[in-house]
Amino acid sequence: MEKLVSLAKRRGFIFQSSEIYGGINGFWDYGPVGVELRNNIKKFWWDQMVRLRDDVVGVDTSILCHPKTWVASGHVDCFSDPMVDCKVCKGRFRADHLDAIPCLQKPSLTVQKCAIDKKGPGELTEVRQFNLMFETYVGAIQDEASKAYLRPETCQSIFTQFKNIQIVSRQKIPFGIAQIGKSFRNEITPRNFIFRSREFEQMEMEFFLRPEEKEGEKWYEYWVEKRFQWFLGLGIKPERLRKREHHKDELAHYAKGCTDIEYEFPFGFSELEGIANRGTWDLSQHMKFSGKDLSYFDDETKEKYVPGVVETSLGVDRTLLTVFADAYAEDEVDGETRVVMRFAPHIAPIKVAVFPLSKKLSEPASKLEKDLRQKFTTDFDDVGSIGKRYRRHDEIGTPYCLTYDFDSENDKQVTIRNRDTMQQERIAIDQVKRYLEEHL
Amino acid sequence: MEKLVSLAKRRGFIFQSSEIYGGINGFWDYGPVGVELRNNIKKFWWDQMVRLRDDVVGVDTSILCHPKTWVASGHVDCFSDPMVDCKVCKGRFRADHLDAIPCLQKPSLTVQKCAIDKKGPGELTEVRQFNLMFETYVGAIQDEASKAYLRPETCQSIFTQFKNIQIVSRQKIPFGIAQIGKSFRNEITPRNFIFRSREFEQMEMEFFLRPEEKEGEKWYEYWVEKRFQWFLGLGIKPERLRKREHHKDELAHYAKGCTDIEYEFPFGFSELEGIANRGTWDLSQHMKFSGKDLSYFDDETKEKYVPGVVETSLGVDRTLLTVFADAYAEDEVDGETRVVMRFAPHIAPIKVAVFPLSKKLSEPASKLEKDLRQKFTTDFDDVGSIGKRYRRHDEIGTPYCLTYDFDSENDKQVTIRNRDTMQQERIAIDQVKRYLEEHL
Repeated sequence: MEKLVSLAKRRGFIFQSSEIYGGINGFWDYGPVGVELRNNIKKFWWDQMVRLRDDVVGVDTSILCHPKTWVASGHVDCFSDPMVDCKVCKGRFRADHLDAIPCLQKPSLTVQKCAIDKKGPGELTEVRQFNLMFETYVGAIQDEASKAYLRPETCQSIFTQFKNIQIVSRQKIPFGIAQIGKSFRNEITPRNFIFRSREFEQMEMEFFLRPEEKEGEKWYEYWVEKRFQWFLGLGIKPERLRKREHHKDELAHYAKGCTDIEYEFPFGFSELEGIANRGTWDLSQHMKFSGKDLSYFDDETKEKYVPGVVETSLGVDRTLLTVFADAYAEDEVDGETRVVMRFAPHIAPIKVAVFPLSKKLSEPASKLEKDLRQKFTTDFDDVGSIGKRYRRHDEIGTPYCLTYDFDSENDKQVTIRNRDTMQQERIAIDQVKRYLEEHL
Repeated sequence: MEKLVSLAKRRGFIFQSSEIYGGINGFWDYGPVGVELRNNIKKFWWDQMVRLRDDVVGVDTSILCHPKTWVASGHVDCFSDPMVDCKVCKGRFRADHLDAIPCLQKPSLTVQKCAIDKKGPGELTEVRQFNLMFETYVGAIQDEASKAYLRPETCQSIFTQFKNIQIVSRQKIPFGIAQIGKSFRNEITPRNFIFRSREFEQMEMEFFLRPEEKEGEKWYEYWVEKRFQWFLGLGIKPERLRKREHHKDELAHYAKGCTDIEYEFPFGFSELEGIANRGTWDLSQHMKFSGKDLSYFDDETKEKYVPGVVETSLGVDRTLLTVFADAYAEDEVDGETRVVMRFAPHIAPIKVAVFPLSKKLSEPASKLEKDLRQKFTTDFDDVGSIGKRYRRHDEIGTPYCLTYDFDSENDKQVTIRNRDTMQQERIAIDQVKRYLEEHL
């Protein structure tokens, strides 16, 4: 894990937010190659979930919305973690995570141990519930009426706008509504790098269907499988992925089934995505609290009903960490260790880098790079030995590097080098575009 | 303007946030075609400003960051609007916008008039300064130390991460750092639809350069022109765009020049984008408040200096409103009014719609649509007369509609209809892709 965090910073994938001010716990900034990787992951989700399907449409809703949304969804009452204070170090912690947390004053001790060793048991405060929604006030007056929340999930406004979207899109059930957007949770103890942060981005889809049990089951199974396949399409190693179906006693009272797709991170198997058969719960709650009719009328059968819902929900940042951890590899090359990020080519931040062998060749090499840039995400690199430039691009996962050398002027060829096999071959300059189109 | 708002809702571009709960002032949701239009605008900016340039790199930083950022930037002390209360209606308003605002209790009166008519002058409270940053608390304790702000602009974390980004990207001055992301301003009186909302998205770029005056002037002029051209590339009518250079007395004390690009909205010329020559102010402030060195070392000349900055800053939502207002047209067709959105094809939400003339032809028409969907954003529409389907797609600005009719089975041709000219022509089905590639 430390190697990943260090590489992420060194190569400009991920920085601590506000580093020059000492950082802010649970917030991260994405650097030049990080933002490209993020965008490629989001595009792959949007293409597969919205653009290439005729039964899912997209939305983009606001982060702050009417606070009653979160009363109806249950978040105001129930979206909380158990919290305790350590009386020794005055730190505040999740009661269910205690054994992993160092005491702030004595980092060699975990909180529980610190409390037990120094003061004996009982030096932790009673467990209290702490709501994870960030609060703010909208408008010029700060009172109960103007209190609002940064959304802790993107899906609720899909439910509140269900009727509007169904009408304008003229979709018929079954169909889905999908969204990519930021969410916020005031985690007591953010941890595991970008895995559990306070600000994160989600990719959620609500699929609306007839409320009969067999329909719910059919589509639930369909989406569990579909979403699992999506991770394989992202290039994730199948042996590090697993599905974990929730036991009956883990389920919310309204839920009919829930499966997590988990990945084996360096810190163990952890949830990437949840697929849940939620029945009519969400729409019914918003109907109750708004007094508005969100039911669906079937033109053909003349039936009116509140649709059931199957939800698929994952985080952009978690997915990026998965891609990052999964792509990381160390090879032995001529007795030295080579770090290489084996991203699937379609999500690699940079597709091709162009190197002039000598600065004297910068002009024609740069011309080639500018030409390729019209079509691909490229980089031009003329600093250091070719070997060093390969290492640099291996670490950001560039699938192909082209070297323009002194022969190139005459034979109109360049050397193309494959990131994974490290094989090099000569290729005609006017064939480079076609080669890349075929291999990327 | 009312026509635009109504069309935006009717066709699924933009909804009021949380409509079923009575809405929340200053927040908007983008529906299925709205999100496509937004994404196309953002992609056009990113392509032109980052991907196709070798001297600008991208970032994606967190919305919440260390609060000292906003002390250094001056926002904690100075980012405020003058505010008054109307003693009649108890409403709270911007002191500099009073004449346009209806009294909440007597909508036929403006606030000033309401105060003057009902109670005589003096019934407005004294002017107070109201800070526009949304506040929240990070972590489990709510005190001064945990207070944080939703960023009111995306550019400050470009400055605080300047050094990290310069190092990892190995860019040399002059170069730029660009970002697209949400910002928040607790406007006292949000207005003009999505023009002035409380949550909005920005596209900002900071271009770092040698601090000499002539360098600043050169790049400032370059970016004013470049950004003006960008709006033309977006298809905006040149006669509704203008540049307005700020007078010396409008400029912040550190600023050396600022030009607004303005558009003539139904409510008058208003600012779309600001291009500002900000000198070394921003980096110097963050150096002062963080104690960290953000200066640049020039390898070639062996000089070390704090770079100057030229900023380009615009809002996604404002740009979308511009595109929306600019594209709106009403034609007379056979004595009836046709509403048509003349979006530039490259930003139109849907590029091509496919209609079967009769539901009996749905299968082959749908096959054609699925085939085109691999390459373009498409829609399949088999409801109502062909004329009605044309009107629907005119209102969402679809450049081309294809009709599959009973002859299509035999002659392997379809009718392609142009949104703007309404001309129809027969075209071979196997030529459709090439036709669209050439015309879009």
